[in-house]
Amino acid sequence: MKKPFILFGFMMNVVGHLSAGLWRHPDDQATRYTDINYWISLARLLDDAGFDALFLADALGQLDVYQQLPDAALRGAAQMPVNDPLLLVSALAAATRHLGFGITVSTTYEQPYLLARKFTTLDHLSNGRVAWNIVTSMLDSAARNLGMTQQIPHDERYARAQEFVDVTCKLWEGSWEADAVTRDKLAGIYSNPQKVHAIGHHGRYYQVPDAHLSEPSPQRTPVLFQAGTSARGSLFAAVNAEVVFMAGLTPQAIRTDINTLRQLAAEQGRDPASLRFIAAVTVVTGADDRDAQARYQAFQQYISQDAALALFSAWTGVDWSAFDLDRPLEYIETEACRSALASLTRIDSGRQWTLREAADTIGIGGLHPTLVGGPQAIADQLEQFAEEAGVDGFNIGYAISPGSFEDFVRYVVPVLKARGRMAERPAHPLTLRERLFGAGQRHLPADHPASHFRRPS
Amino acid sequence: MKKPFILFGFMMNVVGHLSAGLWRHPDDQATRYTDINYWISLARLLDDAGFDALFLADALGQLDVYQQLPDAALRGAAQMPVNDPLLLVSALAAATRHLGFGITVSTTYEQPYLLARKFTTLDHLSNGRVAWNIVTSMLDSAARNLGMTQQIPHDERYARAQEFVDVTCKLWEGSWEADAVTRDKLAGIYSNPQKVHAIGHHGRYYQVPDAHLSEPSPQRTPVLFQAGTSARGSLFAAVNAEVVFMAGLTPQAIRTDINTLRQLAAEQGRDPASLRFIAAVTVVTGADDRDAQARYQAFQQYISQDAALALFSAWTGVDWSAFDLDRPLEYIETEACRSALASLTRIDSGRQWTLREAADTIGIGGLHPTLVGGPQAIADQLEQFAEEAGVDGFNIGYAISPGSFEDFVRYVVPVLKARGRMAERPAHPLTLRERLFGAGQRHLPADHPASHFRRPS
Repeated sequence: MKKPFILFGFMMNVVGHLSAGLWRHPDDQATRYTDINYWISLARLLDDAGFDALFLADALGQLDVYQQLPDAALRGAAQMPVNDPLLLVSALAAATRHLGFGITVSTTYEQPYLLARKFTTLDHLSNGRVAWNIVTSMLDSAARNLGMTQQIPHDERYARAQEFVDVTCKLWEGSWEADAVTRDKLAGIYSNPQKVHAIGHHGRYYQVPDAHLSEPSPQRTPVLFQAGTSARGSLFAAVNAEVVFMAGLTPQAIRTDINTLRQLAAEQGRDPASLRFIAAVTVVTGADDRDAQARYQAFQQYISQDAALALFSAWTGVDWSAFDLDRPLEYIETEACRSALASLTRIDSGRQWTLREAADTIGIGGLHPTLVGGPQAIADQLEQFAEEAGVDGFNIGYAISPGSFEDFVRYVVPVLKARGRMAERPAHPLTLRERLFGAGQRHLPADHPASHFRRPS
Repeated sequence: MKKPFILFGFMMNVVGHLSAGLWRHPDDQATRYTDINYWISLARLLDDAGFDALFLADALGQLDVYQQLPDAALRGAAQMPVNDPLLLVSALAAATRHLGFGITVSTTYEQPYLLARKFTTLDHLSNGRVAWNIVTSMLDSAARNLGMTQQIPHDERYARAQEFVDVTCKLWEGSWEADAVTRDKLAGIYSNPQKVHAIGHHGRYYQVPDAHLSEPSPQRTPVLFQAGTSARGSLFAAVNAEVVFMAGLTPQAIRTDINTLRQLAAEQGRDPASLRFIAAVTVVTGADDRDAQARYQAFQQYISQDAALALFSAWTGVDWSAFDLDRPLEYIETEACRSALASLTRIDSGRQWTLREAADTIGIGGLHPTLVGGPQAIADQLEQFAEEAGVDGFNIGYAISPGSFEDFVRYVVPVLKARGRMAERPAHPLTLRERLFGAGQRHLPADHPASHFRRPS
């Protein structure tokens, strides 16, 4: 019996997420992103099909590295406008039974005391179906609108992030004992104050002396997601993450990173086998290979080079408007450009990349692989990718929304089911952590560092 | 024809809001506050009955003035645990058509750049049905968990709050022009960068140079609510608020405050008649006066003195555990105690208040009037109160939830309808601002100071 894949739908509260300009496709409905019914339909589609979660990315600033202006992003709806992802969740939780919600929130611009309450609130309202994708924010445009004259340096961001996560986990795990809430109408005791503990956190960045404002939710701590491939980001993931979102492009590169992360996790005293890894892929499929190819070619007609370069500039920190579109990129000799070229080379190492080719490739699915093929071919590619990379599943991006998800559900899901790659639907809804790690695993496992914040019972 | 009342349901994302210990009543379901279906049912009840909005209070700290501990609040579920109100809204908006949502958010612990995005997101998802109840946070317990060694002094809180509101209004009103978003699939232009403006805010407390991250929502600026009776709070309300929530207890006291506020608003260049005023009342009703009195007496059995004093201590800043329960309060000679006594005297000036009597009175409805009577008697009292106080409507609190709202809808709403005190249900949903101020009034009126942030068209 093969192991079922973890499957997430990969979205953002925007018109254009990873595919640049595709909102112009006649079938794309992402311009309805401000309509709650658009999101409810999507969440139900994913829930009914057996997806594990909707993964919501976020950014807290405009994309303005390209031409040093937000203009290309605005024209092409490249992650701008961008609305808040957390505020979608209660509506989507109410409309679904099983689907989890992985929501991206940065540790840099929130107070841990209040963010802890937000996730507890949503974990209650969703019956334990939320995950926190922990990020530290990379955009200068966010920093300068949020009270900082410039970015906090990368490594210090992670030091703050670690203390931030520690504070939230102290609130989630170490404040209210399991039997603190009695709801005893006769005795007149809702919570027993002897079992609600002030966390007494006095750290370098945060002071949080008191108890958590919220009573424990089904999972207490939301499932902790993290994406990080820098050295400091990897250590952070190895310490904190239960699910790691791998951004490396080739299966081989991902496998290398996963090995490193498992090793680091083991050094932290964690069971390295307990970590789950997912990779992002965009899937273009259809009734058969030919149909899929036809759709892919149709999608390509709608790629916006302008929007793709706005995304590529934001992701790499390089203003690509300064460079020749048709010259192979090797001539550029800055560190940032070399790093960007390395990302492209992971897509295809056998060719010389020009900026135009980069934009064309990024245009569908961003800096993640795009798989094209009929149902069997996609299932083959996913299985091969998972095997080679050692990932447990996929964050499925879209070319058009909800069309790409509808196609995936219609064509690919039945094949994955037939191959034992879709988990059986549980009789009763599970928490997201149980869904990902097995029945009974509602709370952080005992080998997770944050479990030390629990009080002995 | 009489003017319809503005009617809000007054709640908080807690077990116990204003009534102390009433969660122990056999019919009370507020212990279900973590269940999204509890909230959806309540919102539908209010929506179907013709309420204008659900008003959600909030607090960002535990109530620990009484005995200098959170224990009484925890035992009696007195506003603790307390979950996030903003995160309820998308589910409730999706489940209703007309109901507005007034959500309390403090200006003290958020970044205006991100709060603006939150309200824009919710205004989109609700089709223009959100209001922001602007508060500055009064709890020391919030301050010390949110990175401050102590409260920001009261007047400085308001100076920060004004700059905060200015920044958000610049983002809402002055950043994206009305025709900035074209969604032009053929031209490939989602937004026209020439019409999306950086706000260039460089103030004393906040630096927000860039454009709003979100495109304009139906109302752009959420309806602005404020409750403030201090001198600085009144000025803040006169400058900013479209709806003012009056906390004074007697109609006469409220009328005096309203006159002051209208005068202050006029001095700011605003039409003083354009402000709307609402008062909080808790209604205990039944089939007739006798039934209502019986319910009231039953409710009184469940008042928790302990929880009532936890609330009273938090609201007044006085630790009432230090004082005699049965001695008339006049003997206490601190400023805070005199102020608290003044509040009580507004409830009933003809008696000497002891602490025990204060707790018994606060126990149902807090420091707001509680009206008890059959349908006609309640309608009479509401009309008389509105007439004497000069308010436009009411924020209806509960003794038990949803029972108090069910009783109000069943018994009082039909009488209010018959008397022309309930607005006709519009054929098509309106924005909350239109509902409160008339069709066509989707945006801030031209005499509101923040309308100056608009760009000339």
